[in-house]
Order: sequence, then C-alpha cells, then structure tokens
Amino acid sequence: MTENLKSLQEITEGIKPLDASWMEKAMGRTAQLVMPPRALGRLHELSERLCGIQRTLSPSIQRKAFLVMAGDHGVVAEGVSAFPQEVTPEMIRTFITGGAGINVLARQVGAEITVVDMGVVPDLDPAVFDAGDRLLIRKVDNGTANLAVGPAMSRKNAEEAVIRGYLVASELIARDVQIIGTGDMGIGNTTPSAAIGAVLTGSSLDEMVGRGTGVDDEGLNRKKAAIQNGIQINTPDPKDGLDVLAKVGGYEIGGIAGVVLAGADHGCPVVIDGFISTAGALIAHSLCPHVTDYIFAGHCSEEPGHRLMLKHLNLEPILNLGMRLGEGTGGALAMNILDGAISIITDMATFEEAGVSEKNT
Amino acid sequence: MTENLKSLQEITEGIKPLDASWMEKAMGRTAQLVMPPRALGRLHELSERLCGIQRTLSPSIQRKAFLVMAGDHGVVAEGVSAFPQEVTPEMIRTFITGGAGINVLARQVGAEITVVDMGVVPDLDPAVFDAGDRLLIRKVDNGTANLAVGPAMSRKNAEEAVIRGYLVASELIARDVQIIGTGDMGIGNTTPSAAIGAVLTGSSLDEMVGRGTGVDDEGLNRKKAAIQNGIQINTPDPKDGLDVLAKVGGYEIGGIAGVVLAGADHGCPVVIDGFISTAGALIAHSLCPHVTDYIFAGHCSEEPGHRLMLKHLNLEPILNLGMRLGEGTGGALAMNILDGAISIITDMATFEEAGVSEKNT
Repeated sequence: MTENLKSLQEITEGIKPLDASWMEKAMGRTAQLVMPPRALGRLHELSERLCGIQRTLSPSIQRKAFLVMAGDHGVVAEGVSAFPQEVTPEMIRTFITGGAGINVLARQVGAEITVVDMGVVPDLDPAVFDAGDRLLIRKVDNGTANLAVGPAMSRKNAEEAVIRGYLVASELIARDVQIIGTGDMGIGNTTPSAAIGAVLTGSSLDEMVGRGTGVDDEGLNRKKAAIQNGIQINTPDPKDGLDVLAKVGGYEIGGIAGVVLAGADHGCPVVIDGFISTAGALIAHSLCPHVTDYIFAGHCSEEPGHRLMLKHLNLEPILNLGMRLGEGTGGALAMNILDGAISIITDMATFEEAGVSEKNT
Repeated sequence: MTENLKSLQEITEGIKPLDASWMEKAMGRTAQLVMPPRALGRLHELSERLCGIQRTLSPSIQRKAFLVMAGDHGVVAEGVSAFPQEVTPEMIRTFITGGAGINVLARQVGAEITVVDMGVVPDLDPAVFDAGDRLLIRKVDNGTANLAVGPAMSRKNAEEAVIRGYLVASELIARDVQIIGTGDMGIGNTTPSAAIGAVLTGSSLDEMVGRGTGVDDEGLNRKKAAIQNGIQINTPDPKDGLDVLAKVGGYEIGGIAGVVLAGADHGCPVVIDGFISTAGALIAHSLCPHVTDYIFAGHCSEEPGHRLMLKHLNLEPILNLGMRLGEGTGGALAMNILDGAISIITDMATFEEAGVSEKNT
C-alpha cells in the first residue's frame, strides 16, 4: 500500500470549495448554446459543476471507475437482515466474475470496477478468486462488533478505514481516472447506515430505518431496536463524524467516506449511490463540509431515509427509479446522464455557429 | 412515398394490447437474478415491458432512431412565442448539420435522426440543405391556420398528417429500427399542445398552459386567451382525437400521433419526449387507447401541464430533470436508462449461476 503522507486532519483541512470562476465561465458558455435559456434544466447544473471541479470548459469523465467497498457487520446477530452473512463474500466473487448488477451497469458506461475488502469476516485471497487487482485487501478487521451492544469499532480503526478508502481512491485518481462511483457490499449494512443517518441528520428512527434487502415487520422492529440500543449505549457525538463511524458505523462505510474525501481533495467528481454510500458521504461531510461540492447523488433509493440524508447534504438526486440494490448501481446509471450533460456543453452549437435567430426582445 | 394500404380506421382497429405472457416470463427471469426481489425498481418494469413488446426474453433496442417532426403554427400571429417563426427552418438546418441538443444526445445513445417536414411555412429543399435522407418532405400544408380564430386544419389534413407520420415510422421499422424516439420542432407549438392537453385531459388552462420557450407574463396571457378562444370557437370534440387535432392541433403533432400508432401496430417501442410529443401521444391514445402499452415516457418536462398529460395516459416518466427543450432530447437521454434496463435482464447472473445464497426463510 502507498505510504500515507497525510493525516486525516491534514486531508480535511486541505479540501477547498469548488472554483466558482470556472462555474461562471461554464454558465456563460451554456447561455450561448442554441436553445431557450437553460432549457435542458439540471443537465446544465451538472455540466457546470463538472467544469468547476475540473477547472475547464471541456470536462471529461471518459475514464470511469467504481470502488465497491465491502464489509461485514456484527449487528447481524440481532436478526436485522433478510440474507445470511455468507452472501457478502459470495457477492464479492460475483463482482469479480462479472455477473452482478453493478458489473452490468458499469459495463454500459465503460467503467472499471475494483472491489475493496474493507472488513469482511472471512479472509479473502485474491489468488483464490483469480481476482488480480480487481480485489484489493484493505481489511481493517474481520467485521465490526455488534453496534447494538457496544461500539462497532475503535476510533483508531474508524480513522484507519477512512484513510484506507482515501488512499485507494487517490491511487485511482493518480492513474488518471476522471470520475469515481462509490459502491457497497455488506450484509446488514443498511443498519449502521440508518444509525449514521439518524445521528447526523437528527431524524427519527421511524423516518430513517427501512427494510433494506427486504426484512419483514418483525425484522424491521428488531432493526429499529438494535439501532435505538446502539445509539443509547454508545452515545455517538453528532458533531464528530469519526465518533459516529466508530460507534455505529461499518468499515465499508468508512472506506466510502475516504473515497469522497479523496475526490474532494484531488478535484475528482464522486458519484455516490444509495443509502450506504450516502451514509459514507455523511461521515465525510461531517469531517469536511466542502466535500458536497464534489459529490453527485446518483439516485434516490427506495429506502425511506435516503431522501433525508440527501436533503441534509443539500444534494438533489439525478435519478429516481425506485432502486434499492446498492453496489453502485444507481451511480452507474446516473453516469449516463453526466455523460449527456458533458456532451451538451462541449458539443452543442451556439446560436452564432448555427445561424439561428435569438429570442424576441 | 410508400403507398398507404391501410386506412386510419384499419390501423387503429388492428392495434392489440401488449402480450402479457411475455411480460410474465420476463418477471420470472427477473426473480432469478442475483439481487433482492425487484431491487432495481423501475428498471424491471421497463425491461419487462420491452420483453412484452418484442415478445422475447432478450429484447434489443440497439438500432435506435429519432423522428423530429416539424411544423409551423398560424397561432403565432397571436404573439404566443418568445422566438420568431423563422427559427423553425433555422433549427431544421441545425438538426441536419448536427449541432442541436437532439443531435448531441442522440449521438450519445447511437441513434440516427430523421427530420420530417410535416408542415413548416417555407418550402424546404433537401438538396439545398445537403440533407440527403436526413430530411423527409411530408408536408401536408405550409403551416396551420390560426387556431384562435378557426380550425387549425381540415379534418382531411389532420388524418393525412397522422397517416404520413405512421408511414414514415413504418418505413423505419421495416428497416429494422428497434426503438423510435419522437421529437418536435415548431415555433409556437406549445400552444396547440396545451390546447390538445386541455381538451383531452379535461384540465383547466391555468393548469395546462405554460411559458413554452419562455414568454413573459403578457405573452402567457395572450397564449391562454388564444387557446380559450380557439376552444370556444372551434368546439373540439374530446371524444374524437382527429377532431381535436384538426381544430386546435398542428401538423407535427399529428405526425407524432402517427409515429405512436406505427410503433403500437408493428410492436416497436416508442419513446416520447416532452409536452409536444405527449400531445401527439394523447391524439393517438384518443384514436386507440392500447397505444400506451408501447409508449415509454422519456421524461417529465418543466412545462406544467406535462405531468397531467402523462397522468391521463397512465405513463410514469423515466427522467425528471427539469428539461423543456423538446426535439426529442428527453427521450434520447431516457434511452440510456432503457439500455441499462435491458442489460440487467439479459446480462445479469442468476442466484444459481453466481452460487449466491438466497434469502433467509
């Protein structure tokens, strides 16, 4: 692994807001394009923000990559998930063999996928999976502890997860990847995500906790009870994202927070996916509020708390298709829209070039 | 032009509802894919409907085409548009030279574009534009009459517009085009579209009439008055789509209605765009309600009445990005999502193939 030259504090202190001057230049360009003013709505906001992030009027996101962060969760002992824990490594194998939803949708947009073991229970050997560098072992621990009865991890491990996510993403960006999508895999991970969402947005558990992969009513009640107990016992500090991550989070969520910080630090757009990715973004935002300038919210999940998380981050989702798979699937689909937004600002003719009459005065 | 062998009545009577058995087979396939039940939300509905339309579990929309139907409107004499009428042919030239929004977004999804002169004021010569077969002259008349003072066109011309649209689309389908997007160009055409929308959905003008390309408050009032007068004077029959088209419609709108009928008749999915395309779909739906089985609503426009139109057709838009350009742009962007939906049902592994454990019972 690359040696970490910066502390987490140095990283968060170094992140700057978006360059407004490039966004203004981009808005000037949009105003000249051969259509009524801002007639393509949100496509303009998206392309102009990409111009601001990349400091250019010709943004490019041709080199796309997904980081699917994986981790396991001690809280599954509370019966909070509809699927057994062994599905986490089984799905990691599926990501590597190429048959999962994220594989299919990432192929559509020409994105590469790297799976990162941030903390799954079994020790995974990339050689056994014939995974090559499609699987990175950045395991902080073999799963979290049960957040319903104590902290999910130590503060030191929480920081380590964020730093490892930051480094993995920084390496991609150093290889000229131009946009990163965040994905997740981890049976049980809507539980820590909902806990993070409740603490950091100040929402009630009734608003924030949903059925995840499909628990029944009893499972939903167990899930709410586990989160309620976890918050009561651990008293995470809503002003301290690292404390929230340590007390009620997960390793893949910490890794996603690190990916978001890396995008913001290096000026690389990050497309977050659904509930779990956005929990990671909430942690990153708690550590450094400027990160939202660099985040695109791929979609709005069916998980009911997701919209509250996005509202807290002041991010409007690009798509709203009732999806709730995770893995990065909503982000991958949204990259099509970002590609379209870029093609408008870079390829469309101006009124002058097209020789088209302008609006009546 | 191909000789028309069918009357409009024969066309509408021949259109059948979707084949439910193929949709059921497709739902069975979706249920086996390696994810929680229906976790990709609307992607499943989209792919399953494509399976039903194409009667296969391996639907394909690789060969995509847009028909940008163009027409002019006598009602511009009432001061209903922010742009002068000469913009219609100027934009047609831009479509042919490739610099318009629809060109850019159609290229992104690999769709060809054909512009069809259904009834613009000037006589267009494809040779002058160096347009080749990218411009088809199917002109019914040199623009409509002013709907505010009398019928926009004769009933015979309304039928002719629908038939010509049907034939153009049927030719594309005969050339193995697998999905057709509808587009429109015609200064003033949100006015007849709003009139059609008000009559066929039974909505008020306050709900249905918007600012189109951007008229000011006075222009909006003139637009409402023109439509109100047009409906009062012409008394279009809300039970008779052809009467509505004739009295308060437009040639490009009739052409779009014909494209929709052709898709339904030949089992080819049609992606409609915004306010004008949906007015065309309303006419087609009035002639034959089964057409909605074959229609995908690309997006929801900023034009306020659009959502009411879509609701009347019981169609849920795929995208909601605040767009209001027309030309087919929302449909083009939505084809990315349809491509993604197809890739899920055709390329994703099943639980069995992936060797992943199923849900706890």
